[in-house]
Amino acid sequence: MPTTIAIIGAGAMGSAVGQRLIQGGARVLSFTEGRSQRTLDRVRAAGIEPAAIADIAKADLIFSIVPPAEATGVARRFAPVLSAASAKGTFIDFNAINPNSMRDVGSVLAGTGWDICDGAIIGLPPKPDNAGPKFYVSGGSAAIVDRLAALGLRAHRVDGSIGAASALKMVYAGINKGLIGLGTTMLLAAAGSGSAASLHAEMAESMPELLARFQRSIPDMYPKAYRWVAEMEEIAEFLGPDDPGAALFQAMAEVFSRIAHDQNADGRLASTLDGVLAGK
Amino acid sequence: MPTTIAIIGAGAMGSAVGQRLIQGGARVLSFTEGRSQRTLDRVRAAGIEPAAIADIAKADLIFSIVPPAEATGVARRFAPVLSAASAKGTFIDFNAINPNSMRDVGSVLAGTGWDICDGAIIGLPPKPDNAGPKFYVSGGSAAIVDRLAALGLRAHRVDGSIGAASALKMVYAGINKGLIGLGTTMLLAAAGSGSAASLHAEMAESMPELLARFQRSIPDMYPKAYRWVAEMEEIAEFLGPDDPGAALFQAMAEVFSRIAHDQNADGRLASTLDGVLAGK
Repeated sequence: MPTTIAIIGAGAMGSAVGQRLIQGGARVLSFTEGRSQRTLDRVRAAGIEPAAIADIAKADLIFSIVPPAEATGVARRFAPVLSAASAKGTFIDFNAINPNSMRDVGSVLAGTGWDICDGAIIGLPPKPDNAGPKFYVSGGSAAIVDRLAALGLRAHRVDGSIGAASALKMVYAGINKGLIGLGTTMLLAAAGSGSAASLHAEMAESMPELLARFQRSIPDMYPKAYRWVAEMEEIAEFLGPDDPGAALFQAMAEVFSRIAHDQNADGRLASTLDGVLAGK
Repeated sequence: MPTTIAIIGAGAMGSAVGQRLIQGGARVLSFTEGRSQRTLDRVRAAGIEPAAIADIAKADLIFSIVPPAEATGVARRFAPVLSAASAKGTFIDFNAINPNSMRDVGSVLAGTGWDICDGAIIGLPPKPDNAGPKFYVSGGSAAIVDRLAALGLRAHRVDGSIGAASALKMVYAGINKGLIGLGTTMLLAAAGSGSAASLHAEMAESMPELLARFQRSIPDMYPKAYRWVAEMEEIAEFLGPDDPGAALFQAMAEVFSRIAHDQNADGRLASTLDGVLAGK
């Protein structure tokens, strides 16, 4: 009998991970209660079975892949159902939440009898033609990494208990997305101060790899900016009020919030950024 | 007769630029009033002539290369002397100041009869074995770029008036030094949360060029961190209170301030960073 994996969260990442697991031989369920017909259609098109909460609790593995703000709510909602389940599996929280929030999730689920793991997904959603992101896991049973690898995921252990994988996600996203926020800020300032053409020429000569990274990652960010606001706030909370990095990531949240608003308005900031990136 | 260049500011950049100009065939003076015997010795060893304020005003070109906070004071102090000088040359403010401060410098010197230029130095001080930094100039007479190039400097024009070269310096330094501040913040957070080894492995695989940049630029920053505090504050002022980038660079100033304090204390943060960068 194939391994059954239930995914809570049917977003771009959750659906793509589900497809990858199906390719790896698994049966994949998705908790779709309250989701739109469009989401249901997309999930079914991916070969994933929409499922009710009671069926989710019968899975071998449960992955929580939801927006950061929903992670603790998911744990609270599923705790009684997991406690009631006769067979106990493994629950992995793959959300981009800070280690303290992850420890809250762990506490909420501690009495259910399930093995609870902290997970972090690093990289873009898997596609048929790429190796896919990496799945880091800390806490819980060490055997889980081999089980995930057997299902076709690039799985790695992070030494440490619940919180360690979330911390890795925070620091990696802080570097990766923070760099995009920094570039966004300075390229807009270049455009506003008439120094964009000189900046482009100077970067092309003295930091070509960074210019190429901006050209790739800044336009990629526009449609995701609204989601990154909460991620930056998670990083600020992770760093804590005594770290100057907390104020730094509060500011990053504002940077992405401006881009998110721009996407809902006339896209003026995005086209300014595109112009600077093209050397215009 | 060789071109005579007077440099105000005998720091690492000012002295190295002076040496490069001497190699290029110029006579170089340095305004050393009130400086230590050690500075005088270093200046003379570089072949630069210590000079009084009246002699500085007889030079063909004057370069102001001082800490940002001193730039306007230098302009105020030299304005009457430049006004009194019978022969009028070119004064270039090469300081890392924001465009508004640069416009203040321009106003202070406007009535002196000298050609006033806005300059920006991008890159590390020249050494005998490298091409040296780039010297960007805006405002003033367009011929200045060719004169600098004839003296062996890598000189470029920035389109625009006084303020444009300073703006370029702000945006470039914001990217270059901001990235170092971001890396410093997140590597310290990785060490504090037990995720440093995993972060190093992940970066080595998925962002090797950024890891290499951190390995080079973060330790290089430690002894300069105290100077970068004021530079980050200049960038915050440049961005202005309505830009979320202002709060971002206020936070960057705090990050470098912590490192500066650490350098004057036990160097614990620096050795933590060294450990993370080495994958320990």
